Amino acid sequence: MIRHIVLFTWTEAATAEQKAAVTAELRKLPGLIPQLRAYTVGADAGINQGNHDYAVVADFDSVDDYLVYRDHPDHQKVIAEHIKPIVATRAAVQLEL
Amino acid sequence: MIRHIVLFTWTEAATAEQKAAVTAELRKLPGLIPQLRAYTVGADAGINQGNHDYAVVADFDSVDDYLVYRDHPDHQKVIAEHIKPIVATRAAVQLEL
Repeated sequence: MIRHIVLFTWTEAATAEQKAAVTAELRKLPGLIPQLRAYTVGADAGINQGNHDYAVVADFDSVDDYLVYRDHPDHQKVIAEHIKPIVATRAAVQLEL
Repeated sequence: MIRHIVLFTWTEAATAEQKAAVTAELRKLPGLIPQLRAYTVGADAGINQGNHDYAVVADFDSVDDYLVYRDHPDHQKVIAEHIKPIVATRAAVQLEL
């Protein structure tokens, strides 16, 4: 299994509406990209100081399935239209499990 | 459910032995902290450029269970003895699912 993990911080100018749109649009992807075996996305819960603002954890059966997701036009559209306009920093890891 | 996610980059001076010890020590924690429902840890798979070096994803039934893990002496010992000596940057999010 491959687990793909991304954490974002948003710009100070990012609006609540823009942030909510990221979640709404990402949550459409499991219906569009069948290679996604599990998909958890959302804003930081606010328990600790100094955290990033947002997380994506996506599980796949194989590296090839992850690459289908990474490069899928529907995924790339969410990145271009909803994430890139408000992202300040991005941290990512892919874990082989 | 609470999903706790941490990504690290290691210092350039970090040795392969030090990095391997982080995984070995973290993997002891599920046997010591029963609040851990699922625990995936490990080094980045090397698929993409620019990634962080290491990921921890820990699942808990509740925020209280996460806090037991966060503050548990066995966890704090791994952080102090094995992670802090080699960490360059850290990014974290807790997701409520």
